[in-house]
This record gives sequence, C-alpha cells and structure tokens, in this order.
Amino acid sequence: MVHIPELVDAHCHGVVADAVDADAFALWCSEASVPAPPGVSYLDGPLGLAVRRWCAPPLDLPAHAPAAAYLARRAELGADEVTRRMLRAAGLATLLVDTGLRARADRWLGADGLGEAAGAEAAEVVRLETVAQRVAASGVTASGFAPAFAAALADATRGAVAVKSVLAYRHGLGIDPERPPARAVTAAVGEWLRVGGGRLIDPVVLRHVLWCGVDTGLPVQVHTGFGDRDLALTRADPALLQPWLAAAEPSGVPVVLLHCYPYHRHAGWLAQVYPQVYVDVGLTLGHVGGRAGPVLAEYFELAPFGKLLYSSDAYGLAELFLVGAAQFRAALTQLVTEWTGAGVLAATDARRLASAVAADNARRVYRLPGA
Amino acid sequence: MVHIPELVDAHCHGVVADAVDADAFALWCSEASVPAPPGVSYLDGPLGLAVRRWCAPPLDLPAHAPAAAYLARRAELGADEVTRRMLRAAGLATLLVDTGLRARADRWLGADGLGEAAGAEAAEVVRLETVAQRVAASGVTASGFAPAFAAALADATRGAVAVKSVLAYRHGLGIDPERPPARAVTAAVGEWLRVGGGRLIDPVVLRHVLWCGVDTGLPVQVHTGFGDRDLALTRADPALLQPWLAAAEPSGVPVVLLHCYPYHRHAGWLAQVYPQVYVDVGLTLGHVGGRAGPVLAEYFELAPFGKLLYSSDAYGLAELFLVGAAQFRAALTQLVTEWTGAGVLAATDARRLASAVAADNARRVYRLPGA
Amino acid sequence: MVHIPELVDAHCHGVVADAVDADAFALWCSEASVPAPPGVSYLDGPLGLAVRRWCAPPLDLPAHAPAAAYLARRAELGADEVTRRMLRAAGLATLLVDTGLRARADRWLGADGLGEAAGAEAAEVVRLETVAQRVAASGVTASGFAPAFAAALADATRGAVAVKSVLAYRHGLGIDPERPPARAVTAAVGEWLRVGGGRLIDPVVLRHVLWCGVDTGLPVQVHTGFGDRDLALTRADPALLQPWLAAAEPSGVPVVLLHCYPYHRHAGWLAQVYPQVYVDVGLTLGHVGGRAGPVLAEYFELAPFGKLLYSSDAYGLAELFLVGAAQFRAALTQLVTEWTGAGVLAATDARRLASAVAADNARRVYRLPGA
Repeated sequence: MVHIPELVDAHCHGVVADAVDADAFALWCSEASVPAPPGVSYLDGPLGLAVRRWCAPPLDLPAHAPAAAYLARRAELGADEVTRRMLRAAGLATLLVDTGLRARADRWLGADGLGEAAGAEAAEVVRLETVAQRVAASGVTASGFAPAFAAALADATRGAVAVKSVLAYRHGLGIDPERPPARAVTAAVGEWLRVGGGRLIDPVVLRHVLWCGVDTGLPVQVHTGFGDRDLALTRADPALLQPWLAAAEPSGVPVVLLHCYPYHRHAGWLAQVYPQVYVDVGLTLGHVGGRAGPVLAEYFELAPFGKLLYSSDAYGLAELFLVGAAQFRAALTQLVTEWTGAGVLAATDARRLASAVAADNARRVYRLPGA
Repeated sequence: MVHIPELVDAHCHGVVADAVDADAFALWCSEASVPAPPGVSYLDGPLGLAVRRWCAPPLDLPAHAPAAAYLARRAELGADEVTRRMLRAAGLATLLVDTGLRARADRWLGADGLGEAAGAEAAEVVRLETVAQRVAASGVTASGFAPAFAAALADATRGAVAVKSVLAYRHGLGIDPERPPARAVTAAVGEWLRVGGGRLIDPVVLRHVLWCGVDTGLPVQVHTGFGDRDLALTRADPALLQPWLAAAEPSGVPVVLLHCYPYHRHAGWLAQVYPQVYVDVGLTLGHVGGRAGPVLAEYFELAPFGKLLYSSDAYGLAELFLVGAAQFRAALTQLVTEWTGAGVLAATDARRLASAVAADNARRVYRLPGA
Repeated sequence: MVHIPELVDAHCHGVVADAVDADAFALWCSEASVPAPPGVSYLDGPLGLAVRRWCAPPLDLPAHAPAAAYLARRAELGADEVTRRMLRAAGLATLLVDTGLRARADRWLGADGLGEAAGAEAAEVVRLETVAQRVAASGVTASGFAPAFAAALADATRGAVAVKSVLAYRHGLGIDPERPPARAVTAAVGEWLRVGGGRLIDPVVLRHVLWCGVDTGLPVQVHTGFGDRDLALTRADPALLQPWLAAAEPSGVPVVLLHCYPYHRHAGWLAQVYPQVYVDVGLTLGHVGGRAGPVLAEYFELAPFGKLLYSSDAYGLAELFLVGAAQFRAALTQLVTEWTGAGVLAATDARRLASAVAADNARRVYRLPGA
C-alpha cells in the first residue's frame, strides 16, 4: 500500500461562506449555469455522487446519505464549520488560490480564510485578465495601458506563486504565438476602451497579457479543456497552444496546462516534448466521479512523472476540496498498487512517483517552501 | 446484482425481411459499403464476434458457433422467425424507429412490423432531410418550398415522437447557428431545385430544415460521431454543434446527440452544460463488441445520469437489436456492480441510475406512456 | 493462455551501435529533443520504467534495476552484445526497417545488421521524402525532377516491402487529396530548388511524392498521431486523411496508418470503412508503458482484426525493440485472456486473432514469405 502524503492543491478558488440552498448546491456541483430540466438533477451525476460519498462522513453522516439529509446537516453545522471540516479532511499542506474569480456572495472565503480553515499554507495565483480589466477600468489611455498593466501586474504578483490565463474562455487557444508589437497592443486597447472596457476578448490584448505573464518569471497556469459553457470546447484543446509553447520555451518559464480533459492525452504529449510544460489533473478528477481511476491513468500515458501536478480546482463549495483530494488519493493509490502488483514498477519507484505527483512536483515548479 | 428492466430502444431502423447471404450479412455487420479485401472478414471484428456471442443461442446454437453454421441455421429458420427471436430476446418495452432510411430489399420491416415482432410498443422518428427531399421532388417552386415543407413535416410528425437530423452526413456539424432568413432559404432551394433536387447538402436548406425540426416541439435527434464513410469524421464532432445548441436552447426542445463515439466525452460535457442536451449511446455499444463495458463507462464521466439514453441504432439485421441490448445490459450491470462494490454509489442509487438510463429517461424525454 | 507467436515488427528504424551515455540514453527514451528540466527525468516516465522492467533481465540484472546500474552493465557488455540480447529477447520473425532516418552516430545498425542481431529476416521500407530530397540535391532541374524521382524511387524500392510517408511532419495530413498536375509539380519543385532544396515541406511536392508511392504498388505506411515536436499534433489526426484515402482507394494499394495515438479510435474507424486501410500500433505501445493493455484494447474497438498490425517503431536504442515486443505480447495476452474468460470470444477465435495481429496480417499485407 503506497502512502499518499499531504497534498499541494496547486489550483483552486474561493468558496461561498454563506448558507447555500438546495438549488444552488446542485448548480455548484456542475459546470452548468442554469438549473437542470425537470426529471434531471445535477446531483445525480458523477460529481454529485462523489460529494455524497466523500463529504457525508466528515459531517457525521454515513457515506451516500441522501442529498436532503446532507443539506439539512450542512445547514445545521453552518458554513464555517462545514468549510473547516472539509478542508481538514482533504489533508492539504498548501493551497494555491486563483483570486481572480469570485461568485456573488455576501461572505466569500479567499486565500487567507481557506489556509486558516485547512490549517495549511496558502499562496496566491494572479489571474492575468482580471488585472488587465481592472487597469482598463481605471481610466487609463490606450497608450498608457501597457505600462500601467506592467506596474499593476508587478504589484499584484508580489508574494504570488503563479499567474493564470483564461485565454481559452476569451478567444480559444489557437493564437498567433508571437508577442504582439507595442503599436498593435495600443491600437487594440484603444478599440477595447472605446467600447467601454469590460470582459477582455481581444486576441491581441490577450496575447500581450499572456506574454506579460511570462515576463513575471512565475509559472503560467493556462486553462485548457472543459469548463463552463463560456468556452468553445473545440478551441480549448491544449494542442492548439503548441506554437505558443514553442515560442515561449526560450524563457524557461514553466507553463502548467490545467484540467485538459477530454484532451488530456494531448497534454501528456506536450509535457513530454516541451521541457517547460507541465500538466495539472485539477477539475477533471472531481468531476468524473467514479471514473477518476481510469481517467487519472490516462494522464500517465505520455507525461513524464515529474511533469504531473495535483489540484482540485475547487470553486464555491468547500466540498470540492475534499472530493478532489479524496478521489485523487484513491485513484493514485489504485494506479500504483495495480502497477506494482503487475510488475510495471518497483515499490520504491511507486512511492517516489506518488510523492512527486501529490506534492513534490508542485513544490519544485512553484518554488514553495520544502522544495 | 442490479436488475436492468425492459429497455426503450430510442433510435433504430427497419430490417431486411428477405434472406441475407453470407457476403451481405458480413457487410451489415460493419459500417463499410464495400466488401473487405482478401484475408479480412468484417465478421472477424468486435461486432461480428458479438453477433456470434449473443445471437447464436436464440437460434438454438451454442454461443460463438462458427459463422457458416450460424448462417445455415438462420436460413433454415427463415427471416421472420429469426427477427421474432432476436427482438423477443432483446427485452424491449418500446422501439423508436427512424423511418427515413431504407435499404434495397423486397421485404422491409418498419415500425409496425418491428413492434409486432418484438411484442413491444413502436413509434416513429421522422428524418427531416427525407421529408425535405420528398417535398423537393414533388414539383414545388423555390418560394413554395418553405410552406410545403412545413405542411409535409406537420403531416409526417403526426403521431411521431421525435425528428432526426443527418446534418453530419450532409455538411458536417459546424454550421452557422442562426435560423436562416426566408429569402436565403428560397435562394438556396432555388439552386437545389435547379440541379434537380436529390440528396440535400446545401447548408442553408439544411439549417432551415433543422430549425423547422425544432419548431415541431418534438425532441430532435442528431447524428454525431462515426457512421458510414459518407461522413467526414472530423466534421461529426458534436462539440462543433455548440453554437447551435446555445441558439436553440431558448426553445426548450430536447436535443439528443446520437452515437457520439469517438467524441462521446465531448458529448457528455455538452449534456452537462446545456440543459436541453441529452446523449444516446446507440450504435457505439454494438460496434465496440467486447469493449462495451469500458466505453459505456466513458459516457458516465461528465453527463448527468438523467441525460443518458439507450438505443441500438439497429439497421438491416434483426441481430443488431439483440446485440445492442445485450451489450448495454452487460456493460451497465458491470459498471453499477463495480461502482457499488467500490463504494462509488449506494445500491439504491445504482438501481435508480440503471432504470433511468435503460428506460425512464427515454420515457420522459420522448413523452412515452409510463413516463 | 493464448500463445503469441514470433512477431513481425512491421515498422522500425536503425539503432546506434556506439556507446550511449546517460543523458543520451534518457533522451532516446522520449520523443523530446532537449534535456528534461531540473527535477525531471525522462527515465521516470512510462517508457523509462518499461525499459527497466523488460530490458534489465536480458542483461542479467533484476527487473527494475536502477538506471545507473543498468547503464553500467550496458557499457560493460558493449553495444553489440546489448543489441544482440535485446533483439533475440524480442522474439522476432521479421523486421521491416525504415531506412530513411538516421541519427548522428559513428556506427549505425541498419536493416542487415538488425536482422543478423535478431536472427530474423529483415526487409526495407523506403521513405519517400528522403528519396525526393536526395533527388533534389542531385542537381536536377525543376522539369527533370518528376522523371528523376520516378527512376530513383523505382531503384530504391527494388527489394523493398513498403514505402513510407512523413507528410504529418512536413505539412500535416489535411491535404488536397488529388494527384497534382505535372505543371504544378514542376512549378513547386522550381520554388523548392530555388531556396536550395533541403527539407521538403511544399504541399504540392509532398502530394506528388505520396502519389508516386501509391504508384509503386507497395503498401504505403503513413505516420499519424504523436511523434517528436516537429509535428503539429492537431494536424496529425489520421481522420484528416479521409479525402485522400477515398481518392487512393481505387488503386487497391494498402495504406497502413502508423502509431495514431491519441487518435487511434479515429484510425480504427477508417480501417473499418476503407477497404485498403490498416492500423499499426507501433510507437504507442512502447511509450505508454504500464498502460499498454488498456490502450491496445482501444485499437480493438472498431478495426476489423484483419486490419491491425504490430510494430515497435524502435529507433536509436535496441531496447525499444524489446520493450515494444514485450508490451505488445503482454497486452495482447491480457486482452484475449480477459475476453475469453468473459465469453466475448471462443478460445479458437482468440488464437486466430492473436496470430493475425502479431504476424499473419503483416505477412499478408507486405507479401512476406509465409503469407
């Protein structure tokens, strides 16, 4: 039996600290943005089952307690206590929190609150497009944008461990790989400001912002693969990023491809042939529920084991920290146990591999204490 | 052990009621349109093995009886008796039959004949392009097409439970999502009629016809993924339909993505994020033979369980009704048994899930009796 | 237990016969072209583990001996002895060697040397683009290219068993399917010669060269799917070749899709619907290490069993011949044993299927002795 150590959850978000009603809870357990039609419940799906499996026991209920009983007990304990129990049960050493996305809620728990609840270290991941939109909303001129953004990014990343791009949501990953010239950036920002700023979708500005992320020297996390329906799935294939990965390679800056499913095999190949490319299994392992074992195994087909990272991509519900962690532990234990039994690797290699993917790779890539 | 109830086979076609010789039988067991080259037999493949496995016993032969013995016994019993035995063995409550496709055969069994042979309810699915081609062949003018098609479709769908689009075969799924303006439809129909009508491949007319399908208020079945070589596989990815799914969402009309393989994981995501989207495992489970278990499990990775439907997509050979049903039962039983044993779900959830996918979801979506 | 006979390794390359140091060895165990970053080793990946698993015993070390011990023993025995041991342990009847690719090395073992080391028959596969580049470098004129290439190809293929295209590396598989007219070829060659010849990337010349490959009447091997980073993964999907496969079908010339991963399910469909199309599992089964079993099974989902071929795609290291063979044997044994046990097929079909994929299909397609 291979022991999986405390995890580094290398990509997650804040959680709602208000009470959550049944409909909102079901919606948080999916990537959907509207309620399910009559006869369908998002809780009757891979992730919903996984929540009832892993999260009921920390609330003193038997695994698979009915959803109604679960929600009643959740309300009884209150959001703070539930958050504390979920995050403690997840067994985390460190959380890296993308602070650029926040749902509407009166009380919202960010990096500090999550770290405290988990009894773990917490550090920040800075979302590039959020900083850019803030700068655009600040009254900057088109020609003033580039220096103002550079300053704002330098400020925002002080103490942060990574930056993050949501290019997949804003344009898709098939971009011109080169750094856009200053004049083109100014022109594109001018257009963007002319329509009032707001959601950044201009490909030239997005590329500029992405390259500025590289310039920070911090690892760049890139959303790839599935997510909510704001993205076009066919434009979120990480293989579309290949020209940009080649262009960014000389910088030596690590690029972490997040999620990747259903293109995770593509991502594994990129991690094998580009030295600076890594793959994070976050989001996927939670969402696929009982299929976490076989799906995790597919990430191990081409990627060097030093290139694979764990995260939960938890967002909104504290439960998602525990679901991600529990499924990752179970799936990784199953994989290395099966492989050791079948003679695929030696027990000593199995331990090393498990420790690398669970925490050591993240400590090294994000230069965390203990690396 | 989870009991799988009688199935709703929610997408199938008619079968040949003539005698079928060895070459034709082999061809019906593949999506190929020409004979296999020397040294290769289509029966020596996943589906061919599955036919010998599941269909020999109802003909009083041992499972895996050689193909020659199977075909001899088949001839001895006659097509009617074979059809009756296969359909009874499939354990069907209801069949939904796409009546818009018919192979050359003297005797052809459609919805009524199949229902009688199966001892099951049978209802019709109307193929949109077939109706459109019939209207085009009727001597209609370009400007008369739209009202004539509307009337013909209203007539054809009286008593039907769904409509079906084969857009994937005619153009590919990457269409302009919006309903085309009347003037554009008239112009495109004019071009089509000018070349004599026939096979409908014009994208504007195809879109018009698809939107008229939505207007019926009946669920719209859409062919996606593999099929015969008339389609370009890369243009049959259901994710290409994403813009149209968004455009059609306000109608509330269910869209059922048929088949989907090898893009079934993409389809599962669509079913999670678009409330009106469903996924049907038909065709795939028969064709992949001994791999039905692992492949079915992949459909359960992202789709809510209330969004998954069974069908055989049987066409031409009565055997394909039984192969589809038998493999689906075996694969679903294996999945929920394994999941229950591993603690992924509770036994009561397992029963509910199996019943939903086998029949209840189809009854609800297609508004069948017993829903 | 199904016996897997001696294999036909239907696609492989030469190996370095010099000593190989630790860094070079690690690089040969990946598709990467530059060293791994600090903290990452290419040997700590699926293929690296597989090398330690399968190749240590023939060097008199226990399976999974540490990499340092393995490399020391390898140096002690010398390249010739290591090559002999690896190739003998692979259990090969025949090797088909692509002679158009050669790494920098003082001593390089080609078809003859490999055959001798293996105690097996060896035959040549001629790489089309290599011949074309040789002709371009010979001082030919634009208008003289076509006849000179035809003559050179006729000469090069004398005694060869197949030709090979690396179109995926040079342009991608999404080409205009038709044979380019002579005038267009001359013009394109003129442009190519004008820039000094060299690496052939012009799509018109590539198409001409591919069609000349068909004209030889020999089977055409086509690289598809992953490889080194010289290719764009999204342009290496074998389904992009569909129009060309249709155009080339009347020739009757077999087309063997090599590798295919992660698009191997797409390839299986092509092999089902195009009579002249075959699928080779080479490269993939070695690289995916402990995942060879589940990945091989995916090749068996749509392809007729008479259409599947084995190869190692070994290149550079003799170990890759053994890894490919050992993993293929283990994976195929596991698949047919599991299927036989589950009643998917009869034992007699299992033996036939295993023998077909391991050797018989290759003997028939490449017209080898014993076919």
